[in-house]
Amino acid sequence: MSDNAKDATQASASNPSTLSEPSSVIINKSAHEFDKTLFDSLLSRRFFFAPSFEIYGGCAGFFDYGPPGSALQANILEVWRKHFIIEEDMLELDTTIMTLSDVLKTSGHVDKFTDWMVKDVVNGEIFRADHLVEAVLESRLKGDKEARGQAAAPPAAEDDKKKKKKKVVKSTAVKMEDSVVKEYEFLLAQIDNYTGAELGDIIKKHNIVNPETGNQLSTPVEFNLMFQSEIGPTGHVKGYLRPETAQGHFINFQRLLEFNNGRVPFASAQIGRSFRNEISPRQGLLRVREFTMAEIEHYVDPNDKSHPRFVDTKDVVLQLLPKDVQERGETTMTHMTVGDAVGQDCWDFEIKSSYGWIECVGCADRSAYDLTVHSNKTKQKLVVKENLTEPNVYQKLDIQLEAKPFGMKFKKDAKTIEAVIRGYSQEQLAQVKAELEEKKETVVKLEGGAEHTVTDDLIKIQEITVSEHIREYTPNVIEPSFGIGRILYSLLEHSYWARENDVARGVLSLPPVVAPIKCLIVPLSANSDFVPLINEISAKLRRAGVASRVDASGASIGKRYARNDELGTPYGCTIDFASVANGTLTLRERDTTDQLIGKIEDVIAVTVALCNGQMQWSDACEKLEKYSGTQEVE
Amino acid sequence: MSDNAKDATQASASNPSTLSEPSSVIINKSAHEFDKTLFDSLLSRRFFFAPSFEIYGGCAGFFDYGPPGSALQANILEVWRKHFIIEEDMLELDTTIMTLSDVLKTSGHVDKFTDWMVKDVVNGEIFRADHLVEAVLESRLKGDKEARGQAAAPPAAEDDKKKKKKKVVKSTAVKMEDSVVKEYEFLLAQIDNYTGAELGDIIKKHNIVNPETGNQLSTPVEFNLMFQSEIGPTGHVKGYLRPETAQGHFINFQRLLEFNNGRVPFASAQIGRSFRNEISPRQGLLRVREFTMAEIEHYVDPNDKSHPRFVDTKDVVLQLLPKDVQERGETTMTHMTVGDAVGQDCWDFEIKSSYGWIECVGCADRSAYDLTVHSNKTKQKLVVKENLTEPNVYQKLDIQLEAKPFGMKFKKDAKTIEAVIRGYSQEQLAQVKAELEEKKETVVKLEGGAEHTVTDDLIKIQEITVSEHIREYTPNVIEPSFGIGRILYSLLEHSYWARENDVARGVLSLPPVVAPIKCLIVPLSANSDFVPLINEISAKLRRAGVASRVDASGASIGKRYARNDELGTPYGCTIDFASVANGTLTLRERDTTDQLIGKIEDVIAVTVALCNGQMQWSDACEKLEKYSGTQEVE
Repeated sequence: MSDNAKDATQASASNPSTLSEPSSVIINKSAHEFDKTLFDSLLSRRFFFAPSFEIYGGCAGFFDYGPPGSALQANILEVWRKHFIIEEDMLELDTTIMTLSDVLKTSGHVDKFTDWMVKDVVNGEIFRADHLVEAVLESRLKGDKEARGQAAAPPAAEDDKKKKKKKVVKSTAVKMEDSVVKEYEFLLAQIDNYTGAELGDIIKKHNIVNPETGNQLSTPVEFNLMFQSEIGPTGHVKGYLRPETAQGHFINFQRLLEFNNGRVPFASAQIGRSFRNEISPRQGLLRVREFTMAEIEHYVDPNDKSHPRFVDTKDVVLQLLPKDVQERGETTMTHMTVGDAVGQDCWDFEIKSSYGWIECVGCADRSAYDLTVHSNKTKQKLVVKENLTEPNVYQKLDIQLEAKPFGMKFKKDAKTIEAVIRGYSQEQLAQVKAELEEKKETVVKLEGGAEHTVTDDLIKIQEITVSEHIREYTPNVIEPSFGIGRILYSLLEHSYWARENDVARGVLSLPPVVAPIKCLIVPLSANSDFVPLINEISAKLRRAGVASRVDASGASIGKRYARNDELGTPYGCTIDFASVANGTLTLRERDTTDQLIGKIEDVIAVTVALCNGQMQWSDACEKLEKYSGTQEVE
Repeated sequence: MSDNAKDATQASASNPSTLSEPSSVIINKSAHEFDKTLFDSLLSRRFFFAPSFEIYGGCAGFFDYGPPGSALQANILEVWRKHFIIEEDMLELDTTIMTLSDVLKTSGHVDKFTDWMVKDVVNGEIFRADHLVEAVLESRLKGDKEARGQAAAPPAAEDDKKKKKKKVVKSTAVKMEDSVVKEYEFLLAQIDNYTGAELGDIIKKHNIVNPETGNQLSTPVEFNLMFQSEIGPTGHVKGYLRPETAQGHFINFQRLLEFNNGRVPFASAQIGRSFRNEISPRQGLLRVREFTMAEIEHYVDPNDKSHPRFVDTKDVVLQLLPKDVQERGETTMTHMTVGDAVGQDCWDFEIKSSYGWIECVGCADRSAYDLTVHSNKTKQKLVVKENLTEPNVYQKLDIQLEAKPFGMKFKKDAKTIEAVIRGYSQEQLAQVKAELEEKKETVVKLEGGAEHTVTDDLIKIQEITVSEHIREYTPNVIEPSFGIGRILYSLLEHSYWARENDVARGVLSLPPVVAPIKCLIVPLSANSDFVPLINEISAKLRRAGVASRVDASGASIGKRYARNDELGTPYGCTIDFASVANGTLTLRERDTTDQLIGKIEDVIAVTVALCNGQMQWSDACEKLEKYSGTQEVE
């Protein structure tokens, strides 16, 4: 994710990711309103994820993924890898997390990758300045609405970009002047754009204090978001945990280019952990200190940024929120084709959840910035060399120095003087040429202020014809950067609903391609007659690449299925006495709870086809017979 | 990897990993001796991996994986995941790298995860003490051999456990006393077992100095191998980068157990990065500061450590080097079945490479240690509760206090006194019972030294019958821990050989299952007639899950295949004018360079079967016709 896209909220797409189905499709299944408490309880109870170091009291911004969370993440990454890396022939990288400080000094992160923090001047509590200002102003606006008798929108339906970073501050019903309301709304719309000094002014002007204690706040201070450490035992080598994987791509550019036989365009991709030492992270998986990201760097010719497959998507219409509309504090969406959008600006992709619109993919045009600064710093060429079919022929002014007499005249200063002359632009050279013709000498000024006169017997400026057969250029870099935790969380929320007859019976309608377990095998009881069939069915599904799990616990069939509805397991096979006697198997679908029955072989074949996406449930219903033999009773 | 297994070199297996074929099979293909320089050049040139921050001068112990290295690693991990996690139904985890210091304080890492270092007292250069002693003593032994006219063994053939950590120190031909030679050999055999003070004594006694400068060395000082950082902006919360993934399993034990429906045995598994701030890492991928590991924790009943599938492997014979043999400084291997080996001790698995025998999998019996210390520290129960079919009935002494009069008598001290009494063991209670019967009172001593007399109207000790229906126990933990970088490196070395006619033409005979690219598609030229076929074949292979790559560069066919032999690509399809005219395709096998020809459909089907391991090359030779149309000329 690019530095400046850190908190970007520039745009949103109606169907922002191929990894998640549009929310409306699934959420409408539920007769109930989205209940965040029940949803969170499900995720925790089924160990999708949980606070890290939980038994030690936890630590804000760190989460561990349990078995279903790990599997879901692995499956999302596999889809991502296939969709981007394999399909587009990208060059995958796996670079270190620990990064030498020099690299991040050059990239600008050591100096600029910061947030502003303020301290409660009495108890020392620390807040992220923009988040606190936002929370306080929002609570005042809410209080104003209450005083005016306007109900605040319910949380789940709140179509509010700003909600996503909110530290919840209690509101009090106090009516404000209309002009103050307008000002607050304006400040909130621009909250991402203020400098530390501006945030300090807002805090002073609007008398913002610590909402818990009422204490005054310090002026905003910069805090670098990188975790710092020391490499080796000397204490002299500083390192930082990378805040993005991107720098690992850039410093390997020359090797990547060589691997690609020297040709551009190409893309490198990397999936890995990055770290940001957030000041006071909240909001679960959406703002964490350690996270998995997937980043692509497209290296393109600055004169030709076209992509051969752009035609496939350029007419797709997106729902977008342009920058200038945002800056006016408005939230009215624009509809625009991908082609037009790309023509105008870089856009980020957001997914709507109960936290509001969340940036899940940031797109940045990093231009030639990173490659240029690393090249300048290390004196290593990070350029593409293109053989020109037609040589590039042009005139230019060339310098000729009489090396020996020049060296004898200027002695220890000779090299410095030469460097200054060699650094002249063509315009400067034209001026020097005129001077030499007119006065037979030119004056060279060194950095310290010293001046040296160089006479025309030592230097000549001539126009020459250059014929270049190789074009050398620094490619531009276009970077889509995916926050995997945010996509995973959004997917879970979009997949969640509750059975009509029981709000506590949650279901995660995860698509089979990403579901942690594709098929549950449920023997009716612990009867040993079922064991050979369990083993046979498990082995066959495994051989077909379908992740299955046996639940042979003592709980009722209904309870076992309910547990696996919560885990998002799309299919289940029940092994009962008919299986042993007649070689039949029942197949249950999670969302409908419909059951089908057929010969074991046929049911396995259908299950494999369903899991591979080669068959829909409606097709399965035509292949196998409907079954209504068992009730799902708990 | 366990703390004490950090440098363990306890055992080696003749075929130590299912991921690597026995070296002899492949290395024997080569008519040449293993050439480390050519091998390293291949790995670097083809960007399997390279020093991190290379353009910044690099930093010891950090490596970046390029496209083939990343793909090879991903494939090894996929095989690992299938072999262990899927096949054995393990619970996968993905926990944070950044770890709260409290966790690692409890586990013992903050105090004990250290190495000893010594400093050159003049120039401040730092060495890892044991490695330096080892290197110096080995160079003296080598010098002694030279002086005695005995040639040192050539590096590739050196069957020497110690070579793996060697800092190369130049030897001088100096003959030593026989007794000194014996002593050096003894010290080297035990080099992993010395304390800092013992290493200091050895340095003093044997006059070991900095081999480069001849300067004296400081006494050994402890250096903690964990990278340290600060979490959040307060400066009060310390964190370390995990040195192993294991602690992330243990602190989540209760959640894992619940996920497994409260049942033991089960296993958790995690693949991820860990960090060790090595004092002075050398030896490429074998000793690095940041590495990918795959760890399994088997949770077992301490009374029943059996595994249902142990029968499948218990009669396999391994080549082992027992601990006592090692400690005598000998290297004679023992042959033993897995069953016997497990009965005796924990064993590590080593793979032989040009660096000697390298520990690639460490196996540790962590007993109940970790779960117990975390439970004690956090007061959270980390136990298994087993419903007993037969209740466990036994007698015990029970305390009855008369709460009200007891409280009135001792007032503010009542709680402390009660806590002391409740903390009595059964033996102490028997004594108190006797005292009460004899003297009608007992004296309770508090921690500060205060004494209180409790009379028998306030306390009664009675024998009662307990009938326990639940058994509560802390499971034992058996941990196999895999160093993925070491396995990857060993696999590369074992797969490397050079063509008989050209030592510079390297081949990596990677098995298709792990090869970065399975099939290369090579159009004869840039003729546009080939484009539709290239796209068709690519798409078909991709759909069948076979990673392929098109090489349409201008280089000759032979050069393109040679490049891909170095990348370990097992198969190649050449598209030529016959493909366009007759719909035929040639299929080339990497190791033999044999070519077959057939209809496009048939060749694709054979390629898919070869890559999936459903067919061997010999089978393919029967399915398709031999082809000798093109020569591999560069």
